[in-house]
This record gives sequence, C-alpha cells and structure tokens, in this order.
Amino acid sequence: MAQKSFVAVDWGTSSRRIYVIEGGTVVADEQEDCGVTRFARDDFPAEIAALRRRFDGRPLLLCGMIGSNRGWVEAPYVPCPASLDDVRSGAIEPDDGVFIIPGVAYDDGTRCDVMRGEEVPLFGSVARGLVDPDALLCHPGTHNKWVELERGRVAAFRTVMTGELFALLRQHSILGELLQGDPQPGAAFRRGVDHALKHADLPAALFGARADHLLARREDDPASYVSGLLIGTDIAIGLDNAVEHRGPVAIMARRDLALLYQAALDVAGREGTLIDSDESFVAGVGLLAGELL
Amino acid sequence: MAQKSFVAVDWGTSSRRIYVIEGGTVVADEQEDCGVTRFARDDFPAEIAALRRRFDGRPLLLCGMIGSNRGWVEAPYVPCPASLDDVRSGAIEPDDGVFIIPGVAYDDGTRCDVMRGEEVPLFGSVARGLVDPDALLCHPGTHNKWVELERGRVAAFRTVMTGELFALLRQHSILGELLQGDPQPGAAFRRGVDHALKHADLPAALFGARADHLLARREDDPASYVSGLLIGTDIAIGLDNAVEHRGPVAIMARRDLALLYQAALDVAGREGTLIDSDESFVAGVGLLAGELL
Repeated sequence: MAQKSFVAVDWGTSSRRIYVIEGGTVVADEQEDCGVTRFARDDFPAEIAALRRRFDGRPLLLCGMIGSNRGWVEAPYVPCPASLDDVRSGAIEPDDGVFIIPGVAYDDGTRCDVMRGEEVPLFGSVARGLVDPDALLCHPGTHNKWVELERGRVAAFRTVMTGELFALLRQHSILGELLQGDPQPGAAFRRGVDHALKHADLPAALFGARADHLLARREDDPASYVSGLLIGTDIAIGLDNAVEHRGPVAIMARRDLALLYQAALDVAGREGTLIDSDESFVAGVGLLAGELL
Repeated sequence: MAQKSFVAVDWGTSSRRIYVIEGGTVVADEQEDCGVTRFARDDFPAEIAALRRRFDGRPLLLCGMIGSNRGWVEAPYVPCPASLDDVRSGAIEPDDGVFIIPGVAYDDGTRCDVMRGEEVPLFGSVARGLVDPDALLCHPGTHNKWVELERGRVAAFRTVMTGELFALLRQHSILGELLQGDPQPGAAFRRGVDHALKHADLPAALFGARADHLLARREDDPASYVSGLLIGTDIAIGLDNAVEHRGPVAIMARRDLALLYQAALDVAGREGTLIDSDESFVAGVGLLAGELL
C-alpha cells in the first residue's frame, strides 16, 4: 500500500502545500499562495480538475480548510475521541479518486472546538514514533491547538488564537509600529511570558507595552515582549487545560515559532520537545492513503 | 472667571469635538472627523491658525492626543497622583492664547500607564459632584481607563484595550462575520461576561465562539457574547486592580457602551452608575479655563 503514488494537499485558508508522494517518499513539494479563500465555491471543480491534469491523474488527498464550509465540499467533523481510523472513515470522495479528509470536533457539553488539517500530522507523528501516544501536544500557527492524545487518539483539544492576535496587533493596532521586528526567545520575550503566567491581564498588559515605550521605560524589544505576553497567555491556558499531563510537551511547528514556545514552556518550568510537522504530515497522509486508495 | 468665552477641543486620534463655551455654557459644539492622525506635524500651525480665525480669535484649550508625540507640540505627562492643579500647571502655551492640556502618567516601578484627554472629564465630574472624590471610575472607549480617584486626584489608573480589540476582531479577524451586529446587554452578553469572570482564557474563548457557530451550538447572538467576553475580562482586570474599592463604580461613557459595562458589573455583583462624559468634559475645561485664561 505504501508503494502507491498520490498527491497530498495541505490546503489552508491562505495558502496550500502540495506533496507528490511515491512509495512513501516525497518526490516533489510546492508551497502556493492560493488558500481556499482565493476561490469561489463554484471555481473548485475546475481547480480540482486542473490539479489532476497537472499531476497526471494521480489520486488526490485533500486536507484542511478545503473540506470546510468555505471550501469545496464539506466533510463533516469527526467527534472526539478520534482515531486515525475514525478520520479515515469520515473521508469523503466527492469525485472519483479525490478524497477530502474531515476535521475533528470536540464538545464536552460545556465548550466545543474544531480543527481541520492539524489531525493529519498529529496521527502521523504518533505513527512515526515522534510523539508518545499519550502526550500533550501543541501545534502553534495562526490558531494554536493544544491536543491531548490518549492511546494515539485525539481525546480533547483547545484552540488559542495567538498567531492571529499577534498579526492583528502588528498590522492594524496602535501597537503596530512597536511590533515590526521578529520576536526572539530572549530576555524580553521571557519577561513577557513571566508576566502572563503571573497575571491574567492580557488586554491591559498589551497597552502597558505601549506605555513603557512612550515613557521610555523599556526600549529594548517590544515585539519580543508582546509575543511573550501572548504566548505566555497561550501556554497558561494550554497547561491549565491539561493539568494531569506532567511530561514534556510536544511542539509541532515551524522552527522559529517552536523555539518561542519551547522558551515559554521553560519559563513555566516545563520541557518542550520539537517535532517536525512536515515529516509528521507526510507520515499521516501515507497512513490515510494506504487504506483509502 | 467662569464668564470667559473660549473654545475647547477634545482632540483625539481619529476625531475631534469642538465646544464653544461662553459664561460656562456650551453655545455650540461640533464633532469632526479629523483626529491628529489626519495631519502631518507641519500642518498643525496652519490648522490652529484656521481654528482661531474660525472662532473669532477666542482662546483655545486643546486636550487629548494633540499634545502627544503624534500631535502638534508635546505636553509632557503629569505624574500620578495628579490633581486638577497639577494638570493645569503642566499646561503649555505654544502660541499666544492657545493652551495644550497635558496627559497623566502612572509609574509605580513595576508597571506604567498613560492617559491623554480622559483627565479633563475626570476632574470635571468630581467638581460637578457627579463622582465621589474617592471613587473607582471606568471610562470605556477605544481604550478603557480604570481610574482610582483619591481626594479628587488621579491616584492610579490602568488601561485595557477592550474597544480596540473588539474593533480589530470585527474588522479583520476570522470572527469578523460573526460580530457584525451591535452588542446588547442581554443573555448572550451576560453569558460572555460570566465566562470571562470565571476563566482567564480570552484568546481561547474567542475561538470557542467560532466553534460554537460552526457546530451550531449557539446561534443566538455571537456579537453580544464576544463583547461580553471582552468586557468581562476588562472588569475582572479593573476590579482586581482596585480591590479596596467596594462601592459603586462610576461609568463614564456614551450611553450604549455604559449600559454594557453596567450589565457586566452587575454579573460581577457590583453596581455601576452612569456619568455623563460630555457634561463632565465641559465642567473640566471650565475649571482649567478659569485659571489659565
């Protein structure tokens, strides 16, 4: 089964990444600036047909927002606890040889949450032995996902809008001019994390960064300090939500972002281990393709 | 002194309001869509000259961001504790008959904060007897100010970016389409406040509102619920910051916003009393004009 040739698309809101996989190995991959919001719903059939031609009719495995209500065809969420088998069983095949992988929903009666796309690298990371089947994992990005894995299943998860809030503040807020540098996991960042862990006052602490600047109290690195406030708030929520997990936290993200979360966990007295999200995604789609194709 | 005729300008970032005052009474007022960010610094002398001509050479009292580093001439902040006399002493007169009222800064060695413009109605509200000289007051707007008044002075204050965050989420975030209605102080709003008071998880609870919507868990009024999350977080910070104040909280804001804060305080078991910010501003500039002109 692993010998099959197919194309996996991690199709998000604002971009997509295409992997051509043969015999379990990525033979080509491309990042493209065309997420689902770039298309009208009626445009998708032609776009899918174009992808099939471009890749010589290979089967397509589509993950992420392409299966949402803003995508092509909606693949209903699979409820938690969700295993790889559950997600595979929920896949839909709207066109011959074209599969959409569903997202996962959490609902415990008091709160609910959704993910689309993150489930694939999660299962892949466990299968590849990169993450313990009973781990607490965070998957930072636009929306960080804190995921509690139990016996390799997604038992529960919680989304924190950290990346989007930082982008909003940088692009559109009164703090914008202070936030132009790339955050670094140094002293200013750790000071922000420490503040957030001790005080649950994010919307006030953010303005405090501006006051610090106006009064010339702290000139050194406001972008890193504010990133620390946001990521510190994020890990306070994530750890509080999973107090029974005491081991290392698996961090699945691009390296610069993973290093910030690792530093923030260190301020909180916790160990963070870095997981390759790309390798995990490829492992995940390989497992899905093995049964679906 | 109160018989003097002058023009007071409440000149903010995005708009300004002009009051023509004669004998302590407002004889004309105009709201204009030209905050300080609409002008280059070099444009201000001509703009000030135009205002003087427009109002027949009456003295001008300028308050707010016009005295900031993005305004015309910077009027350095007066430190807390700040009385009306302190603020008046800090006024500058960059041009004959044109006064800029300074803002107030707070710095206790662990955190600092700034205000520009809010100090004028604060002092006015106390002088007019609308607010107790030893009160806790909140002044919602783009940036809510929680102000601890002691013997009529601004002893300490804390800014929470609530209004700006709501605007960012509404205009630019993934929650935007859910937030188009005007928040109302009803059940959905109170549910958001209650959540915020019990859980310090704003950046996660915000995404939860989206998940609720996607899973059709709560269709009724996401704009009010999210407003409740933000204002609930705001009052949790404000009350936590001034635990020794147990009396009613004075709320100085436009009426629709004041009613939201009053409802949120009610959820927290506290009384909120509505203060007319316009009347307070006019009283404040009257007191300042009495000595300066």
